[in-house]
Amino acid sequence: MRTDGLSINLATVRHQFGLKDGVEACLKHGITAIAPWRDHIQATGLVEATRIIRSNDMKVTGYCRGGLFPAADAAGRQAAIDMNKEMIDEAAAIGADCLVMIGGGLPQGSRDIAGARDMFADGLLAVLPHARAAKVPLAIEPLHPMTAADRGCISTLSQALDLCDALGAGVGVAVDVYHLWWDPDLAKQIARARWRILAHHICDWLVPTKDLLLDRGMMGDGIIGLPAIRRMIEAAGFHGHQEVEIFSAQDWWKRPGDEVLRTCVERYNTVC
Amino acid sequence: MRTDGLSINLATVRHQFGLKDGVEACLKHGITAIAPWRDHIQATGLVEATRIIRSNDMKVTGYCRGGLFPAADAAGRQAAIDMNKEMIDEAAAIGADCLVMIGGGLPQGSRDIAGARDMFADGLLAVLPHARAAKVPLAIEPLHPMTAADRGCISTLSQALDLCDALGAGVGVAVDVYHLWWDPDLAKQIARARWRILAHHICDWLVPTKDLLLDRGMMGDGIIGLPAIRRMIEAAGFHGHQEVEIFSAQDWWKRPGDEVLRTCVERYNTVC
Repeated sequence: MRTDGLSINLATVRHQFGLKDGVEACLKHGITAIAPWRDHIQATGLVEATRIIRSNDMKVTGYCRGGLFPAADAAGRQAAIDMNKEMIDEAAAIGADCLVMIGGGLPQGSRDIAGARDMFADGLLAVLPHARAAKVPLAIEPLHPMTAADRGCISTLSQALDLCDALGAGVGVAVDVYHLWWDPDLAKQIARARWRILAHHICDWLVPTKDLLLDRGMMGDGIIGLPAIRRMIEAAGFHGHQEVEIFSAQDWWKRPGDEVLRTCVERYNTVC
Repeated sequence: MRTDGLSINLATVRHQFGLKDGVEACLKHGITAIAPWRDHIQATGLVEATRIIRSNDMKVTGYCRGGLFPAADAAGRQAAIDMNKEMIDEAAAIGADCLVMIGGGLPQGSRDIAGARDMFADGLLAVLPHARAAKVPLAIEPLHPMTAADRGCISTLSQALDLCDALGAGVGVAVDVYHLWWDPDLAKQIARARWRILAHHICDWLVPTKDLLLDRGMMGDGIIGLPAIRRMIEAAGFHGHQEVEIFSAQDWWKRPGDEVLRTCVERYNTVC
């Protein structure tokens, strides 16, 4: 079965593999692209992580995850900026296609979602020169509105693209079908995104969904019209990898890692 | 404390009261407006329900809930149209300000959200002459995107207003803060809505939210900036009731009904 164009976000096998055995397992299934998280890099060490990735010639479709700029005070906002600059350097070291940026939630005690969004824009602006210098594109990832309060205050592709328009070169978007499939404006906004599409994440929306964060489905097990969205993304000009990102505390995180990867390959070939 | 302008959606005390004792309990707390559901009317009988509401001079800020047009086959779609026509007659009988219409979910086996939305528009068009003749405004209620697959495929105020624009007189919107607070486009769309705002529902978004349907919070217990949204709605020209609608399986549905109503009045006065 085909594996070109398939990438595995290592969160999908977070409970089965670390970076090194995750890469080995992917290669065993013919998968040559991954997206690691910062804890993978920190657990391995940046030098060793870079060696593992480069010596195995793995493509890195994204590094997860920066952003998260809103904070209750100036010290917290500065800490987020510092963290993002470090992650930009790490993303450059491992050769990631982009650093994925999520909005972050409301600061403790806040009921001001517009204020949180302003903090995200301010943070992005503050780290953008560093990202441009490092040649690491920043991919704003709109998250599902059900996460807006505590995780991702950037909620729609339209909103992310407005930020791209305002900030210019070096900023794009990550299009995750799980977060965006419901948006009546999706086709229009994907067409608008064009060269700004830096990543394409896939999984599925289960019915019923039992948890707001950790109940994502394997492609084909839910109700997202994956081929239709893929065609929109290709028509917009993005022909990069489809990156499987599944948080599934009660199902896929409990299965053997090889079964998860085998299923990803199979579904990538049959339903995506 | 002030109770003018406050309405109780009887779903808020669904497990404590029916229609008759619900009305009595509301009146005891000085609340003179309610929004009943169809099961309240059916359990009581339409004639008796109408008598209870009219003899107590209760205002009815909405009748819940019609819409739900998408279905897997023509017979299912016709059944939904028939159900909505009956509900329009019931809404007229009890003097409801509007019939609340939700989108409905994807038909069994479907991955076509656009198709479900078309079915909603077709259903609305089919019942609109009946609603106009009965002088019952239809209030399209956009539901939170986390319900788009299985309950409410109309997800944003923008989308609902596009339908209003297309259908003309007799169709408006219900603005529920729970479903819409996250929308970056909310202020603009509320301003656009103007005379089409037929209802204003309130509750709160809890952090964390533990269930996609039944974990809504009491006003003040969550992170929604209620006064800011109220001001937008008033600026758009709607000065009707704020209707409390809380689905809370693990908290408010388990408390004594009088405590729930007393808390609604208190929070209405202090945080809304």
